[in-house]
Amino acid sequence: MKSLALSSLGRRTAEPPISWLMKTALEHPGIISLAAGFTDNPTLPREAARALLNGILRRPKTGQAALQYGSTAGDPDLRCLTAQRLLAADDAPGKAASRYNPNRMLITHGSQQFLYLVTEALCDADDLVLVEDPTYFVFLGILQSHGVRCRGVRLEADGLDLAHLQQVLERLRRSGDLPRLKLLYLVTYFQNPSGTTTSLAKKAAALDLLRHFEKAAGHPIYLLEDAAYRELRFSGPEVPSALAAGDRRHRVIYTSTYSKPFATGVRIGYGLLPAELFDIAARIKGNHDFGTAHLLQKLVARALGAGHYDRHLGVLRQRYAAKAEIMASAIRRNFPAAVKWTLPQGGLYIWARLPEKLATGFRSRVFKEAVRNNVLYVPGAFCYGEDPSRSKPDREMRLSFGSASERNIRKGIARLGRVIGRPSGG
Amino acid sequence: MKSLALSSLGRRTAEPPISWLMKTALEHPGIISLAAGFTDNPTLPREAARALLNGILRRPKTGQAALQYGSTAGDPDLRCLTAQRLLAADDAPGKAASRYNPNRMLITHGSQQFLYLVTEALCDADDLVLVEDPTYFVFLGILQSHGVRCRGVRLEADGLDLAHLQQVLERLRRSGDLPRLKLLYLVTYFQNPSGTTTSLAKKAAALDLLRHFEKAAGHPIYLLEDAAYRELRFSGPEVPSALAAGDRRHRVIYTSTYSKPFATGVRIGYGLLPAELFDIAARIKGNHDFGTAHLLQKLVARALGAGHYDRHLGVLRQRYAAKAEIMASAIRRNFPAAVKWTLPQGGLYIWARLPEKLATGFRSRVFKEAVRNNVLYVPGAFCYGEDPSRSKPDREMRLSFGSASERNIRKGIARLGRVIGRPSGG
Repeated sequence: MKSLALSSLGRRTAEPPISWLMKTALEHPGIISLAAGFTDNPTLPREAARALLNGILRRPKTGQAALQYGSTAGDPDLRCLTAQRLLAADDAPGKAASRYNPNRMLITHGSQQFLYLVTEALCDADDLVLVEDPTYFVFLGILQSHGVRCRGVRLEADGLDLAHLQQVLERLRRSGDLPRLKLLYLVTYFQNPSGTTTSLAKKAAALDLLRHFEKAAGHPIYLLEDAAYRELRFSGPEVPSALAAGDRRHRVIYTSTYSKPFATGVRIGYGLLPAELFDIAARIKGNHDFGTAHLLQKLVARALGAGHYDRHLGVLRQRYAAKAEIMASAIRRNFPAAVKWTLPQGGLYIWARLPEKLATGFRSRVFKEAVRNNVLYVPGAFCYGEDPSRSKPDREMRLSFGSASERNIRKGIARLGRVIGRPSGG
Repeated sequence: MKSLALSSLGRRTAEPPISWLMKTALEHPGIISLAAGFTDNPTLPREAARALLNGILRRPKTGQAALQYGSTAGDPDLRCLTAQRLLAADDAPGKAASRYNPNRMLITHGSQQFLYLVTEALCDADDLVLVEDPTYFVFLGILQSHGVRCRGVRLEADGLDLAHLQQVLERLRRSGDLPRLKLLYLVTYFQNPSGTTTSLAKKAAALDLLRHFEKAAGHPIYLLEDAAYRELRFSGPEVPSALAAGDRRHRVIYTSTYSKPFATGVRIGYGLLPAELFDIAARIKGNHDFGTAHLLQKLVARALGAGHYDRHLGVLRQRYAAKAEIMASAIRRNFPAAVKWTLPQGGLYIWARLPEKLATGFRSRVFKEAVRNNVLYVPGAFCYGEDPSRSKPDREMRLSFGSASERNIRKGIARLGRVIGRPSGG
C-alpha cells in the first residue's frame, strides 16, 4: 500500500519541537533541563490535594458526584467561582458582571484544550491568525496542524508594537487576505517565552484596531487572550484583562488555567467566550470528551472555595520569585554582558538574546555544546511562526526556572555561560 | 456584522441530541431518565478511590509525580498494564505480544477523546466511514462535525451483516467513492445502543473484506473497534478483540475505557494503534492537551495494580446483571408482546423495537406522552447515521439501566408500557 489513509490534518501535524527536546533529555540522563515548562516539584500541593480529595470522597453524596460524569461545560460551582475570581482580579465594577457570566465559562482539560477548541471553531486551513513575535510554540503547533497561516507582530516592553500591528493589518487588507483573518492571539501575562506583560491600554488599542479592520474582513476578528501565567505574578502591579477594556470587550476570548499554579497533574483550564461562540465551543468540547474529569473539577472547586488555592499561590509566588532571582544572579555572573535579558515579574521563564552571530538553534554550535555540557534550553526560533514576511530570529533562548532545583539552575546557567562565552567556531 | 467568523467545522458542529435530552430532563425535575448513559451511583468506588489517592499523595515521591505533568502518550506503567490486560483478555499466545505493544498504546481523556483523535488523523470532509445500523450516536456527532459521510451496515444477532457489508463496499467501488473510505467503526461488545456483541469470526471476516477492497481504495481501510463496554459483561463467554483476528490485525485500531467500569468522573480511556498511526495520533493528542491528567492515570494504574479494579468489576457486573434483569422483568410485565427486545449480556442498555406505526422520535406521540408521564428514553433514530441509501428506522428506543435506581427502572418501564400500550393517536 503506497499511501497512508491520513487526513490533511493527519499529514500536516508535525512532530512538536518539545518531543525533540524530551528525546534529547532522555538520551542524556543527568542533563539539566532549563527547557521544560514543568513546574516546581517540591511546592506541589500534595497535602492540600490529599486533604481535599479525602473531604470530597469521605461523604457518599459529594464522593459519588465527583466520580460520576458532570456536564460538558463544566461543574457549575467551578464555573461560578472562576467567573467571580476573574471579575475580582480585573477589579471590574459591579455593572461589568455580565461580561463575566458563568454561563459563558467553559471548563477544559487544561487551557491547551481551550486553545484547540477555539482554533477548531474559528479556523479553516489557509485562514490567518496574528501572533506575537515570539509566542507560545504549542499554539503555533495547533495552527500548523490545522493549516492556519500566521503573521507575527513585534513585541515591545509593554506588549504588542501597535504600529506594527496596524501595518500588518493594512498589508492584509491590501493583499485581500483580511477575510481570512480570524484571531489575534496574545499571551498577555509574563509571556511564554519572552516574559512580557501587555498593558491594558495596549489591549484596548489592539481591540480598537481589530474593530477598525472588521468591515473589510466581513466578520468579527477576535482577541484571544491567553492568561496562563497571570496568577504566577511575583512583582509588579495586577493588570486587568482585555475583558476590562471598555466597549470592545465583546470581541475578547479569555483563557487561563489552574494547572500551572495548582498542579499540572490536575489538568483544569477554562475559557470565557463571547455569547455567540460559547455554544459552538461547548459542542466541540462535547465531541472531544463531553466534559473534563469531574473529580479534578471538584478538587479545584474545593481548593478555591476553602482558600487552599490562594494560600498555595502565595507560597508559589515566593518560590518562583526566589528561583527567578537565582537564575538572574547566575546569568549576571556567567553570561557575557552582550546578552540581553530582563528579570521577569512572573511566570517561569527568562528570555535571553545572544550577541550577533551566536545562533541558538538545534544545529548551532551553542546548542550542540550545551547538550554536550549537559544543559538544555528551548531554541528561540521555535517560538516564531512561519511568517513569509520576515526571517525567524535565531539567537534567542528560553530558559525556564520552573522545575530545575536552585542548584541546577546555578550549574545549568554556569555551563551555558561557558558555552556562550567561548569564541565563536571554537 | 452579518456573518460569524466560524470555521467549516464550527458551522457544521450540531447541537448533540443528548443536550436536548438533558434540557428536557432539567425542565422536568423528577423525570425518570432511562436515557442517560450515566453509570450506577451507589457502586462508584468511593472508598477505593480515596484509599488509593491517599496512598499516592502520602509519599512525596509518588505524590509529586502524580501532581506534575506526565508525557503525552501516557503514564508508562498504565500503558504497560493496559497492554498486558488486553493481551490476557484476548487470551492471545505469547508470540502475539507484539500486537499488544505498550509503545503503541495511547492514554486519553476518555475513549471519546481517542475516537476524536482517530477521526482527526484519518478523515477529511467528504471522506466516508462505515458504521453499524444503529451505532453510538456521539461518534456520529464527531463524524458530522468533521463533514465525514457515513454509510450504515445492518446488524445481526452476532454482529455485522457481512453480506450487507460486502454490498455496501461494492456499491462504493462502483460509485468511485472507495478512495474516500477510511474506516469501519464497530462497537463490538454489548453495543451502544443495540446490546449486540460481534463474534470474533465476524470481525475476522470484516477485516478480510476490507482488505479485499483496499486495492481499489488505494490506501489501508482500518477497523476501528470500540470496546467501551467490554468489561461490563455479566453473562456469556469472553470474546477476543479483532487484534486476535489472525493476520489482518495490523489494520485494527482498538479503543476502550476505564471510565465506565471504574468511575466516569475519572476520565481515562485508551487506544492501541497500528505503528504507522501511533505517532500521528500522539502528536494530535499533544496539541489537544499534551497528555491526560497525570493524577487520574496514577489512580487507575494503582487500582489495576492493587487488584481494586478487578474486585470492583466483580461488584459492578453483579449489580448491572441485577438491574438488567429488573428492567427485563418490567418490560415483560408492561410492554405489549409485539415489542421486540433481548436480554443483554453486558453493557448498560436494552434496545426495544416497537410495533409498526409506533414512532419514537422527539415529535412522536410516544415521546411526548413519555415526557408528560415523566419518563425519558433515547429515540432510536439518533443512533442512525445520515445514509442517503436508506431511511432511518424511527420506532426504536434505547433504555438504560445504568444510573436509574431499581425502583425507578420499574416505575419508568411501567409508565412507558402504558404509553406504548395506548391505542395509537389516543
